[in-house]
Amino acid sequence: MRAYVFHGPGEAAWEETADPVLSDSTDAIVRVDAVTVCGTDLHILKGDVPEVRPGTVLGHEAVGEVVETGRDVRSVRPGDRVLISCISACGRCRYCREAMYGQCRGGGGWVLGHLIDGTQAEYVRVPHADFSVHPLPANVTDQDAVLLADIFPTGYEVGELNGRVRPGDTVVVVGAGPVGLAAIATARLLAPERIVAVDVATARLDAARKAGADAVAAAQESPEQLVADLTEGLGADVAIEAVGAPETFEMCTRMMRPGGRVANVGVHGKPVTLHLEDLWIKNVTITTGLVDTHSTPTLLRMAAAGRLPAAGLVTHTFPLDRMQEAYDVFARAADTGARKVVLGGPRREVVEATA
Amino acid sequence: MRAYVFHGPGEAAWEETADPVLSDSTDAIVRVDAVTVCGTDLHILKGDVPEVRPGTVLGHEAVGEVVETGRDVRSVRPGDRVLISCISACGRCRYCREAMYGQCRGGGGWVLGHLIDGTQAEYVRVPHADFSVHPLPANVTDQDAVLLADIFPTGYEVGELNGRVRPGDTVVVVGAGPVGLAAIATARLLAPERIVAVDVATARLDAARKAGADAVAAAQESPEQLVADLTEGLGADVAIEAVGAPETFEMCTRMMRPGGRVANVGVHGKPVTLHLEDLWIKNVTITTGLVDTHSTPTLLRMAAAGRLPAAGLVTHTFPLDRMQEAYDVFARAADTGARKVVLGGPRREVVEATA
Repeated sequence: MRAYVFHGPGEAAWEETADPVLSDSTDAIVRVDAVTVCGTDLHILKGDVPEVRPGTVLGHEAVGEVVETGRDVRSVRPGDRVLISCISACGRCRYCREAMYGQCRGGGGWVLGHLIDGTQAEYVRVPHADFSVHPLPANVTDQDAVLLADIFPTGYEVGELNGRVRPGDTVVVVGAGPVGLAAIATARLLAPERIVAVDVATARLDAARKAGADAVAAAQESPEQLVADLTEGLGADVAIEAVGAPETFEMCTRMMRPGGRVANVGVHGKPVTLHLEDLWIKNVTITTGLVDTHSTPTLLRMAAAGRLPAAGLVTHTFPLDRMQEAYDVFARAADTGARKVVLGGPRREVVEATA
Repeated sequence: MRAYVFHGPGEAAWEETADPVLSDSTDAIVRVDAVTVCGTDLHILKGDVPEVRPGTVLGHEAVGEVVETGRDVRSVRPGDRVLISCISACGRCRYCREAMYGQCRGGGGWVLGHLIDGTQAEYVRVPHADFSVHPLPANVTDQDAVLLADIFPTGYEVGELNGRVRPGDTVVVVGAGPVGLAAIATARLLAPERIVAVDVATARLDAARKAGADAVAAAQESPEQLVADLTEGLGADVAIEAVGAPETFEMCTRMMRPGGRVANVGVHGKPVTLHLEDLWIKNVTITTGLVDTHSTPTLLRMAAAGRLPAAGLVTHTFPLDRMQEAYDVFARAADTGARKVVLGGPRREVVEATA
């Protein structure tokens, strides 16, 4: 088969590689019909995720059809159309039993395109298939479904649920990239009074409005003042950090009210300063998290019911063998306006490139 | 009357001052029968709390008898024996209605001995008396009750409840001063598997064992290794910071397991480094808080039922007019072994000094 293989920092190629085979009785082999590229993949290419070994197929989000299952797989069978979650799960360890699948200690967690070969390929082996893929409702398109492999549950669980968004809250989302937009879209499910989006780029703020933000603020132009004005000087109930930088994290801690929550969603590469000299007295809660995807079945039901707006998130589509082009368009998002790029697989009708 | 009056950094004296009078219809005047000194009072004397104006009577923890009430006070009347909480509360603002009394925006919060005259006096005016004092069960002694004005609800709410301690948890308490010991004693109510106390001082670790710690570790001798050994390498479920220093806060973030909680109780004077480059992926929760004292009625019932062990927390007692001596003994705790010092009031049988 062909796949996008990492060969060390700065080097990767769409190339011929060995077909995946069942290696455990709980595995499934899935033919990839739609796959996307994540900001994390760009971090891997930069060398920021050193545990990814050269030779690894990248990618951790896909939709496909099961072609083969190990003898112990019970919940899917060949022919089933499934969502491949970015999080695999053994289902049996202490963390899985508490629905904290991202922290699985039985060989799951974020392994696809990280510790084992991933989904940017014609075929992929998914370990622990019973807990790692989700059968897809017929009326959810590949293009919508693939967004539920990672960014929608990440925005919802690590943003809204960790931040304990409640009806009537003022929610600030700092960073309107794909995950920030997913956080905005899923925040709507929880009936906040208002959602405020903050970003440096006008195009992203426009996208944030389309995703459901009630107000937007350029990061350069005192978003803290806007939030204060909107909340009688009190501050946000919940601030969601969806960038992964010290300055945006600290902005979040300054924008929340006493008793407020900062939900960190961003992937950070360095420490931040936490101003406990101000915050110790303010009853604040700060959370971090890798997504667990315990909400994926719920989000799939909402998508099937037409209650989960994904509109505007997919900006570019490509056939699968134009993977390198998709990476290039995604990496140059500031110029190309790319939010999510989706690639079609080998046997389904090829999605035409819009780029 | 006589009271302990702050005159600016480094200066305070037990001296004659004006009797308090009712200034609002919701006030009560209380005769002080037992009062204690808090670490925060020492911070004020050092000049660390600049909003305390010279001329302010210090102190925010006391037991006494109501001698006069404003016409709108309904829940206590003259003659009632009451606990004066460190937190006053208007009972009506947004925060009070969510039981977050520490953040009261209606003139309450931590005001006694901070923004208005406090309890280290023969008499004290307590604002918003209906929400700021608690009638005392007859069988709870003054000496036990005064610990419920601040340190017990602080350890319980800001430590255990914010840290969401559950049965079976491994709880680490870093810092075995009065609040750390109160956190240890109240942790027992929540049936953890084990409580590990960490401190630099052997005497405090001995006190921690008496308060209920199952294991103790000197801060100098790799407490992180002990916690790892006790938890199969996983880390603590909850780490409670009861010191207020960057190094102990960071120690707490290193000692918790994925999915664990750090509950900050310490009063911090400077920023800390938060290692989000490690923690972003670990599903951690970090909380801060000023005590709300919403748990005070519960803790009083537990004390009346003999279910709240306060043993060993009060090390020194003095008559009220030996306030300066009590401060000196408390400030030199490393030499004197003082944990809590309690002073008796003017009309009750004088507590004899044990120092």
